[in-house]
Amino acid sequence: MTSAPKPDAMSASDARFAAQRLAFGPLVFHAALALRDLGILEAVMNRGDTGASATDIAGELRLSAYAVTVLLESGLGAGLVTLEQGRYRLTKVGYFVLHDEMTRVNLNFVRDICYHGAAALITSLKEQRPAGLEQLGDWGTIYEGIGALAEPARSSWFDFDHYYSSSAFPDALPLVLGTPARRLLDVGGNTGKWAVLCAEHDRAVEVTLIDAAPQIEQALARAANAGVSGRVRGTVIDLLDHSQEFPRGFDIVWMSQLLSCFAKPDIVSILKRSARALAPGGRIFVLETFWDRQKYAGASYNLQQTSLYFASMANGKSRIYDFDSVSACVAEAGLSIQDVHDGLGVSHTLLRCCVG
Amino acid sequence: MTSAPKPDAMSASDARFAAQRLAFGPLVFHAALALRDLGILEAVMNRGDTGASATDIAGELRLSAYAVTVLLESGLGAGLVTLEQGRYRLTKVGYFVLHDEMTRVNLNFVRDICYHGAAALITSLKEQRPAGLEQLGDWGTIYEGIGALAEPARSSWFDFDHYYSSSAFPDALPLVLGTPARRLLDVGGNTGKWAVLCAEHDRAVEVTLIDAAPQIEQALARAANAGVSGRVRGTVIDLLDHSQEFPRGFDIVWMSQLLSCFAKPDIVSILKRSARALAPGGRIFVLETFWDRQKYAGASYNLQQTSLYFASMANGKSRIYDFDSVSACVAEAGLSIQDVHDGLGVSHTLLRCCVG
Repeated sequence: MTSAPKPDAMSASDARFAAQRLAFGPLVFHAALALRDLGILEAVMNRGDTGASATDIAGELRLSAYAVTVLLESGLGAGLVTLEQGRYRLTKVGYFVLHDEMTRVNLNFVRDICYHGAAALITSLKEQRPAGLEQLGDWGTIYEGIGALAEPARSSWFDFDHYYSSSAFPDALPLVLGTPARRLLDVGGNTGKWAVLCAEHDRAVEVTLIDAAPQIEQALARAANAGVSGRVRGTVIDLLDHSQEFPRGFDIVWMSQLLSCFAKPDIVSILKRSARALAPGGRIFVLETFWDRQKYAGASYNLQQTSLYFASMANGKSRIYDFDSVSACVAEAGLSIQDVHDGLGVSHTLLRCCVG
Repeated sequence: MTSAPKPDAMSASDARFAAQRLAFGPLVFHAALALRDLGILEAVMNRGDTGASATDIAGELRLSAYAVTVLLESGLGAGLVTLEQGRYRLTKVGYFVLHDEMTRVNLNFVRDICYHGAAALITSLKEQRPAGLEQLGDWGTIYEGIGALAEPARSSWFDFDHYYSSSAFPDALPLVLGTPARRLLDVGGNTGKWAVLCAEHDRAVEVTLIDAAPQIEQALARAANAGVSGRVRGTVIDLLDHSQEFPRGFDIVWMSQLLSCFAKPDIVSILKRSARALAPGGRIFVLETFWDRQKYAGASYNLQQTSLYFASMANGKSRIYDFDSVSACVAEAGLSIQDVHDGLGVSHTLLRCCVG
């Protein structure tokens, strides 16, 4: 499905160039941020086809000619601007750095959450723990620390989470509640966004969230604000404890962007417990991002690299999975996949699973 | 001269992908290092056209399947490996990460010298000081601290310096000493490599180095080891102090990879003092890297990004210049460029300048 580039059609000199792009990636990353945050890309864009010299931009922004020159020359190599006869103009890549929400969210997330901790990647992988997390706080997993994150890390984390998690909800809603359902179990209900959406979408629906205590508290507050607390309730459960059974008798069990936070044995246990939570004829909906079910190579790339965040910062055990890995867990849990809907939200796939 | 890419021929989806490559650059950087340093790229290469699954590689290297999968999937997105029917194979880019000396030198230099300090790029540019340097030590410029750098930073810095500085010496030697010369002044003589090469190349040549005291000491020790100390001497000078004149009466003034370490006003002063150091008929040779005199776009890119090191880590004031910037300094110093030789060593240009 993914239209991956074919790297071995590359010439040796292009391949060597690509290797240098990897090597200088951290420096170019900060140059791109500086070009964005010091207003340089915007100033170049505003000059349009006429373009602007580094001196023009420096004067306009009251920056040194040195600062603007170093950054624009870096951006020239990185493809953010072009240079002809002393005048810089914005490229499409520069435009995306300046104005694209996905790019903004990813840049800020990598800067504020991942950057320094990513240097502990090898340690993290050897010790199967998020060894980079100590750059942010003294926690076992990032989930313990999210509430205590300082700004701008806090906003960068929530923006990233929101961008990749909630964007598929409007597309998923009619697929999940298209056939009548009364009781829905929201596994890892997190902020309660989905639960409230469901309760608002259909007045017959009652939602039970299971999650850790702080998430339940937050979700119930959201339900109260939305005036649907009568039909949204919560139960505190440690999903990692395989002996903690879920409440039972549900028409629908729902989980969104949940499995990427767990290692495979935990995924199988969550799916088994979900199966036992179903009333007869019930179905399980899994909303997830799979790097091998993407239309664009860039979307696959983002998901593949987000696994490095899970390895070094989040929990040291999970990743953004490929479709076959999750399918195998579904089968191991005694479930079968009935439907697959790709292309929801930014890059999500919805699986409908039944027992047997 | 440089065959720059034409970014605006890009499709919007390719441009958006390129922006994500910038955003995840720091994570992919560490994944590439981990793939190299944990032996994964080598293990994949050894399987040749047959390829290997992540499980195969994990078993062979006694790493977890999780670690190998996360890294290979990241490497897949980054173009280091391909994946077909569950088997990974090395790409040309992967080969360069594994075996190319330039790539090795750049990766290690960015990891050990630049990585954490690069996060202070904006501060560095605003305050015109290398604000990232405090990640390595309490020095005003990196030149004060090089002798005290701990491993592996020390080796990574010297490997980088050596790779980019000394590689052009064999090509430059016949151009500089092709016409008879007796007295040569080596401005910023640094480790003394060039001085010793000259003294060995022509027994009639006497070299005087000017530099800071530790460099002079090191250079004289090298000359003694090579048995040429009778014809290599040193004078301690602070090149940044424009009032400190150079010794005089030289047939040749030589400076290699020196101007990129100075801001433009200092460059003009160094060139003026060099002009006054010449005997009648003498010439000045400047060996430098210019990002706009490169045959390959990858070489321009490396040089443009190296300016970010100068800005955030080295001195906060200098960069890898374009040709016109240095030409303007040469003219301002009352000199004219007689000859330009491109393509020396890795990416050097040799300028021959005369007074007037």
